[in-house]
Order: sequence, then structure tokens, then C-alpha cells
Amino acid sequence: MPAMRWNGWGDPDRATRLPDSVVGLLRELLGVRPDPVPSVPLAEVAPPPPAPAVRALTEIVGPGGVLTDDETRIRHTRGKSTPDLLRLRAGDASAAPDAVVLPAGHEEVLAVLDRCSRERVAVVPFGGGTSVVGGLTAAGDGFAGVVALDLRRLDRITALDAVARTATLQAGLRAPRAEALLAEHGFTLGHYPQSYEWATIGGFAATRSSGQASAGYGRFDEMVAALTVATPRGTLTLGRAPKSAAGPDLRELVLGSEGAFGVITDVTARIRPLPETRRYEGWRFPTFAEGTAAVRALAQDGPLPTVLRLSDETETMIGLARPGEIGAASGDGCLAVCGYEGRREDVAARRAGTHAVLTACGGEPLGDAPGESWAAGRFSAPYLRDALLDAGAFAETLETAAFWSAVPRLADAVRLTLSRELPSSLVMCHISHVYRDGASLYFTVVTAQGDDPVGRWRRAKAAVSDAIIGAGGTITHHHGVGTDHRDRLADEIGPLGVEILRAVKDRLDPAGVLNPGVLIPPAAG
Amino acid sequence: MPAMRWNGWGDPDRATRLPDSVVGLLRELLGVRPDPVPSVPLAEVAPPPPAPAVRALTEIVGPGGVLTDDETRIRHTRGKSTPDLLRLRAGDASAAPDAVVLPAGHEEVLAVLDRCSRERVAVVPFGGGTSVVGGLTAAGDGFAGVVALDLRRLDRITALDAVARTATLQAGLRAPRAEALLAEHGFTLGHYPQSYEWATIGGFAATRSSGQASAGYGRFDEMVAALTVATPRGTLTLGRAPKSAAGPDLRELVLGSEGAFGVITDVTARIRPLPETRRYEGWRFPTFAEGTAAVRALAQDGPLPTVLRLSDETETMIGLARPGEIGAASGDGCLAVCGYEGRREDVAARRAGTHAVLTACGGEPLGDAPGESWAAGRFSAPYLRDALLDAGAFAETLETAAFWSAVPRLADAVRLTLSRELPSSLVMCHISHVYRDGASLYFTVVTAQGDDPVGRWRRAKAAVSDAIIGAGGTITHHHGVGTDHRDRLADEIGPLGVEILRAVKDRLDPAGVLNPGVLIPPAAG
Repeated sequence: MPAMRWNGWGDPDRATRLPDSVVGLLRELLGVRPDPVPSVPLAEVAPPPPAPAVRALTEIVGPGGVLTDDETRIRHTRGKSTPDLLRLRAGDASAAPDAVVLPAGHEEVLAVLDRCSRERVAVVPFGGGTSVVGGLTAAGDGFAGVVALDLRRLDRITALDAVARTATLQAGLRAPRAEALLAEHGFTLGHYPQSYEWATIGGFAATRSSGQASAGYGRFDEMVAALTVATPRGTLTLGRAPKSAAGPDLRELVLGSEGAFGVITDVTARIRPLPETRRYEGWRFPTFAEGTAAVRALAQDGPLPTVLRLSDETETMIGLARPGEIGAASGDGCLAVCGYEGRREDVAARRAGTHAVLTACGGEPLGDAPGESWAAGRFSAPYLRDALLDAGAFAETLETAAFWSAVPRLADAVRLTLSRELPSSLVMCHISHVYRDGASLYFTVVTAQGDDPVGRWRRAKAAVSDAIIGAGGTITHHHGVGTDHRDRLADEIGPLGVEILRAVKDRLDPAGVLNPGVLIPPAAG
Repeated sequence: MPAMRWNGWGDPDRATRLPDSVVGLLRELLGVRPDPVPSVPLAEVAPPPPAPAVRALTEIVGPGGVLTDDETRIRHTRGKSTPDLLRLRAGDASAAPDAVVLPAGHEEVLAVLDRCSRERVAVVPFGGGTSVVGGLTAAGDGFAGVVALDLRRLDRITALDAVARTATLQAGLRAPRAEALLAEHGFTLGHYPQSYEWATIGGFAATRSSGQASAGYGRFDEMVAALTVATPRGTLTLGRAPKSAAGPDLRELVLGSEGAFGVITDVTARIRPLPETRRYEGWRFPTFAEGTAAVRALAQDGPLPTVLRLSDETETMIGLARPGEIGAASGDGCLAVCGYEGRREDVAARRAGTHAVLTACGGEPLGDAPGESWAAGRFSAPYLRDALLDAGAFAETLETAAFWSAVPRLADAVRLTLSRELPSSLVMCHISHVYRDGASLYFTVVTAQGDDPVGRWRRAKAAVSDAIIGAGGTITHHHGVGTDHRDRLADEIGPLGVEILRAVKDRLDPAGVLNPGVLIPPAAG
């Protein structure tokens, strides 16, 4: 696969343009200006000169393991949020790391962390670089330098246990490669987040990623049976059994730690037999409330499809559930996509059971076409975002989750706040992860870039975060904390919860070099 | 319900005696002596005089909230492991708390912890008092006193959300009462550990309890959506959504913390509709290996019964799976018990699917009788243990879990070690909790008390713990750490893992008054 677009998403050859009709609508409806500012070319972007402190790391990883050329540094600058992209498109590479370091294995990661702790060099663990919450934007102030610790050389499956159905995957393995290697043995992870084509195993674990097939395969954190973590204080090896009563489950402390406690170097994941068959289909519900009741019925009483999504009226109308057909009218009501993967008889049974529930809840079957269309475009939305940026629009997403009883007011609160903060915007919502006790809500906003889009979004996002906390939602269901949600973490887990995270960080990373400023809000004073 | 037997298990009126034939077998086979030492009577047990420091707590909980009479203190001495009972039967109440404190709510718990931190009084959170791993045996040395913080006054359901299917249960609620209150609204937890009749919601959470119906309802930790914890540093409120990516899941740090970080005062649990129907039945497998393959097939590819247990050949022969019929011959091979609870059509479908899998794996159906017999006696084993102690035998249990590929060698290693360390003993094993990637193993040992049974057991247990660690198992699957497994915790999570727990404890409980000596091994030096 070629390198990711430095100032956008994905394979440059798959970059797309909006149809003129859509561009016209954007101008008419959202006030998008007809003269979008194009991106600065890569050759004109100049990160600041690298700090000399990083060169000593060649003693650990060899001269080829420390890259300080501009292009490599720019490609490891920030993540893939819309503000990240807008800054890069404007030529701002001030957040570039001083070097990109490529350790070859766990021991080299340990040695790098030890050296960086002694030299006060900040370390940003880097997998696929797909963070959309500022998870790669460490605060380098007060450090002798900042390195991106790119785990791409840790890209193997080191063990596969077909009896226990577990596989030990190195952290730098990208998801498609992991699936290809597992498929050779007849297994799959079944983890398909939007970032699937680029993201890594270590990143999935560090950020509590959740994939489009979470109803069937679970969240990534639920797939983790064991993990190995390199910290400045040594190695953590966690997970001796599927479940244990030997105290708190420290796996759950590493999951979601976003590189602030250590660097996950491998994950032993629960794997499943490759599905014999896959089938995706569409259903229509008259309203989001009726659709929500239907997916809740499936989540609580079963059967559960493998993929279960419900778009609200606006998202259905726009057709965002099928990015390949954006702009094509999709009809009234709310589109639900149900996917079934597994053994043939199991798929047949779950599909029949699901049909009965959805029909009883007022759903109308739309056949396979909408499901296949969704599946074909399931990883395409970020390409669409680039096209929107090229056309002068601003598109961004945010997400939350709540217990079922809070879901309707949470959805309303976020929609209202976004519409108020960003007049002349399109706000779309879907449910894409369900649990017995609640569900996620995923919002997409499209508006005009206008002046200072980053500042406008920051203000809107702050207001939405207040609304989410006020309506009883979590500040993030699967994007993670990064720097964007860091200052809301106390709303989520309380000041004492934040103190717990600080205590753990102080113990594992006493020099504070690991992803500084990410996840854990700085102590007051 | 009357008070639990002070020196044994459960309702004194349900105490039982072994049939003479069984007593004869114990003498013949295991060398149990014919002159068992009876228990000292309660009136002759004298705990040391209570430390005066504890009286000041009446300022917080009122005079009726601080109990210092001998009987109450004795009833809060140690837990219910066999060594605990043998010490109490011998009249040893040296580990009695100085007082039993009865807070009326969360705020009083906070105030007690604050006061005890300032006065250096150790606090042992006390629910049902059913720990079998020394979880109630705090190290009082260096403290001005030790109080048992009995949560019995926190015994209400404070919220029930029928839409999200969650209920907020106070920590001191006993399981049967919780079930009765939930049943009024048509719901159940479905958590039925052996300790069910006495144990509390808070204890389930603090120790990561797992019940007999875990295949269907999950472990208790999986039922916890949110919790409130009183710590010496204030209140922790965790769980804003079913799942979140807002950093590490701190719920999982409180679950299993065994009172060392704080006192859980309520749990918001995931609840389920009361099952329409329940059905239990027996199956026979020629060998434990074949039975293990069968339960693994169900765990990995489904369908899963609600209850799934497999006794090994010895346990099947002895009939321990049905304590009410101990001594009645149960035939050859290995008995499996499968239970199905839920809606009628769901039970029928899962039962049919299970039958197909078990038959394909070489199982022979035994009909409902063995299942009903198991269900009738499901909480009786601890009564049987008392009868064995009365007869001069020693009976104790231990448990572990591992990934499936390690299960056979783990079972062999434990059996071999127990047989070597305790010659002339009966060693029985069953699988009672299954996961996609592994299973628990539960062992029961019966031998003669002989001289120094506590010392002999301590040595045997140490050897078994070595064997468990060596064979890749977890040191405990659902009994917890307490003091008994504390010094093996570094084998489980590594010295750095132990340091993490110390860091959290230091932050939340700076005076170190919470359950000192439990869970976390003391720092060297």
C-alpha cells in the first residue's frame, strides 16, 4: 500500500471529487464559498529544524532507525482530525516530531524509553497515525525533543493458538495485514473501524477502538486476552487467563491509556473462525425513535446481527450511510443496515430472528442493495471528507454513548447544540454500536469552512462536550481522549479518577516523557 | 434469615450430618480419626479487649452503630475458608475486629474513612463475611485499632431503569434480597455463586465474583455498569455509559480491589428479565478430556446453556456435583450439568442446539434428574464441609482458570501436586465457568484433619500455587486474592503490576487504613 496522503486520508490514488451537483448544493445550502483555498504542496512545508537530542537514539535502533528528513517528519505530524488536516493543508508543520524512531522489537522500545527518560525526550507512540482526537499531538514544551515512535517494524504474528483461539499480534501490524495473516490459518479478528485500512493493532488497544461489526465481534478491548507493554520502568505482561479474580484487571488500565503509561508492543487477541458467509441488508423505519426501539430490542433480547446501524432522518436523506452514492436520494425515514457473518445456518437463524423483531418494531425490509452499498463504501467516508475540504466545506465527526434511557435526550442535545453553534450546517447522526444497556451516537457535521474553521469548530466542540456531559453521555465512545477531550476527563471520571491516572503515570513514567499532554489533564498549579 | 453459624456455614438449622456409611469410608479410605475434636462453644470464645480508639466512631454512626460485644466481634472474625473455620472452632478469635461499625449510607462511610485515616484505625469492609481467601483478615499491627465496616444498613435498590435494564443496588444488599426486590419489577441479576445465600452486592463487585450461571448471565464484573466508591480521599463515581473510550476503564480497577482502595457503596448492575422457564439436565461423557472438548465447543461456537458444568471422573464417582446425595453411586465417566433459563422459545432453541453439540462430542443424555438434583443442592456444598469437619475430615476448595490449550496440563498439575502434598486425599475437579478462550478449574480436596491441618494445608496450597503459576493458570478465577493469594500477585501481574496497585492505593488511601495486608503485598524493605 502506498503511504497515506500527508494532508488527507488514505491512498492518494483513491482521492475523489464531489459531483458538481453536490458542490452546487453545498454553496446554496451551506454557504460554502466558490473559491476554496487549495492545500499548500508538500514541498513547501518546512517543519522546524530537529532538536539534536534525538540523534543519540541511533545507538539503540541503528542509523536507519532514526529518520529526520522533512517528509517523514511531516507524515508523522498530528493525526487525521479535520483541524489536523486544515493545519497541514495550510502548511503548518510546527507540531512535527524532531525525529521518527523505528524500533525493531520490544527490547528496543524499552531501551528507547529508558534513554528518552534520561534525556527528557518526549515519546509519541505512532501506529497508523489515524487519531482524530489529537492523540499524536504531544506537548513538547520543556523537553529536549519529541520523537514519534513508529511501530511499523513490529508487524508479525508471533503466536497463534488454534485451540484457545488466540493470536499474539505485534503492535505495529496494520489491520488488513493482520487479517490476511490470520486468514491463512482460517481466523479473523472481525475488527473493522472506519480507520481499518491504516490503523494498527497497538493503536486499537491503546484507544479502545470499536469497529463497524462490534455487535457481532465486540469492541477491540473485548478482544484483548493479554498484552505486553514497554514502560520506562520495565515490562508489564498482563493476562494469564480469560478472566481472573486476582485483583483489578490491569489489562483494562492499559486499554485506553493512549501511550501515556507505556507502549503496547503486542496484543494477544481473541480470534474467530473466518465467517462462511456474509450478508448485509437494509431496513427502513419511519422515525429515528422507532428505529432506536428496534435496535434496542435486538440488543436486549436478541438475536444480534453482526453489523447493526441506524441512520437518522437527515443522514438517510443525504445518503451518508453509503458514501459512494452521496447525493443520490435515499428516501424517507431512517435507514438501518443489518449485517450477518458466520456459519451459514447461524446466519440464517439470526437473520430470520432479526427480521421478526424488526418487522414487529415497524421496520420495512429494503433488501440487500442498501446493505451491499453500505458494505462497499464502509471505509470511504474519510475520502469524502477530503473532497469536501477541497470544495471549501468543513466536515467533522464526534461521538458519544449513553444508557438507553438517556439516548433520545442525548441525541437531541447534541443536534441542537451543533445547529446553534454552527448555523447553516448539516447535522447527521447514527447509532452504530449497541449494548444491552445502551448505545453509541455518532454525529457528522458539514458546514462551510468560512474564516477560521479551526477556531469555530473548537468553540462548537466545547459547547457539544458540555451538552454531552449534561445529557449523561460519555465524552467519547471510541475515538479516544487525546488532547481534544483531555480537559473533559474530569467530567467523565471525576477529579479523583484523574488523580488515579496521574498516580499510575507517575509510577510507570516518572520522567513524564510518554505522550505528554495526551489523555491526562495537567495538575493544577 | 437467622445469623450465619459463627464457626461454620449458613443457617444453623440447615446443618447436616454425614451418613454413617460415609463416615466409615472417610476412616477407611482417608484415615480420618474416629475421635474428632468438637468445636469450642461460642460462649467460651474470648476475643481480646477492644481498642479504645474505635469508640469515637459513634460520633459519626451513633451509639447503635458501633458494636463491641464479644459475639458480634466473633461473628466478624475472619471469613469462611476451612482454616478460618478450624481456627474459630479451636476458639481462636485473636483476629476479631475491635468493633463492628454500621454506617447508614455513603456519606457516613466517607466520614468513617476520613476519621479512621486521621486516627490510624484500620477498616475492613464487611459484606456477607463469606471470603474464603482471608479477605477479611486485615493486618492490624501498627494501627490504633481495627473495625469491621459492616454494610448491612445499605440494603436498598435506589434506582431501577427498565429501559436501559439497569438497577442501582446498595452494597450491603444480600443477593437473595436483591433478587426478591428485582423480581417485583420482573428482573433478575442471575448471579448465583456458592455464597449466594449470604453474600452481598458490594462483595461480589469487590472480589470479581462469578456465579454458577455465568455462561448465561456473565460474571458479576460483567454486570457492573457503574459504581460509587467511598475512599479516604473522597468519592469516585464511575460509569457514564455501557462502554467508553474515555481512557482506561476505572470500573475495572475498582472491581477486584477487595476494599483496599475504597468501599463500594453502590453498584449499578445490568439486569435481565426474569426467565420464563428454567430447565436443568445431565449428560455423561466417557472422559474428562472428551467432556472438556464438548464444553469448549459450546463456549466457542455455541449455543451456550445458562449453566454449564463438567465434573471429572472422581467428582462424578463421589457425587459431589449433587451434595444432597453424597455417597450415592453416580456411575462412570464424567457428569455434565446443563441449565437453560430464559424465554421458552429461546430455551428450546438453545437446548436443541446444545444437545446436537454434546451428542456429536460423544455425550450421553441422562435426562432431567441429575440436573434437578444439582439445582436442588447448588448451595449445599458448604454445609457438607461443616459436616466433614465435624467428622474429623478436612475439606477445602481452590480454583484457577487458563486458556483452553493450557487447561489439561493445568488440571493434571494441580491434581498431581495435591495428591503428592496430601497423601490419602480425595481430589475432585470441575469446570464451571467457560469462555471462548478458556475455562475455570475448581478443585475440592478431602483428607483427614490429622495434626496441624491448617499448617499442612498452607504447605499444600503453596505447592499448588507454584503448580498453577507454572502451568500457566491464574492464581484465582473467582475466589479473590485476600491474604491467601496476596504473595502470589507478583506472579500474576508482575512486580510492576503490583507497583501500579500500590500507586493507586497510596493516592486513594494515603494513611493505608483500608484492609491493610489484603490484596497488595507489602513493599520489600
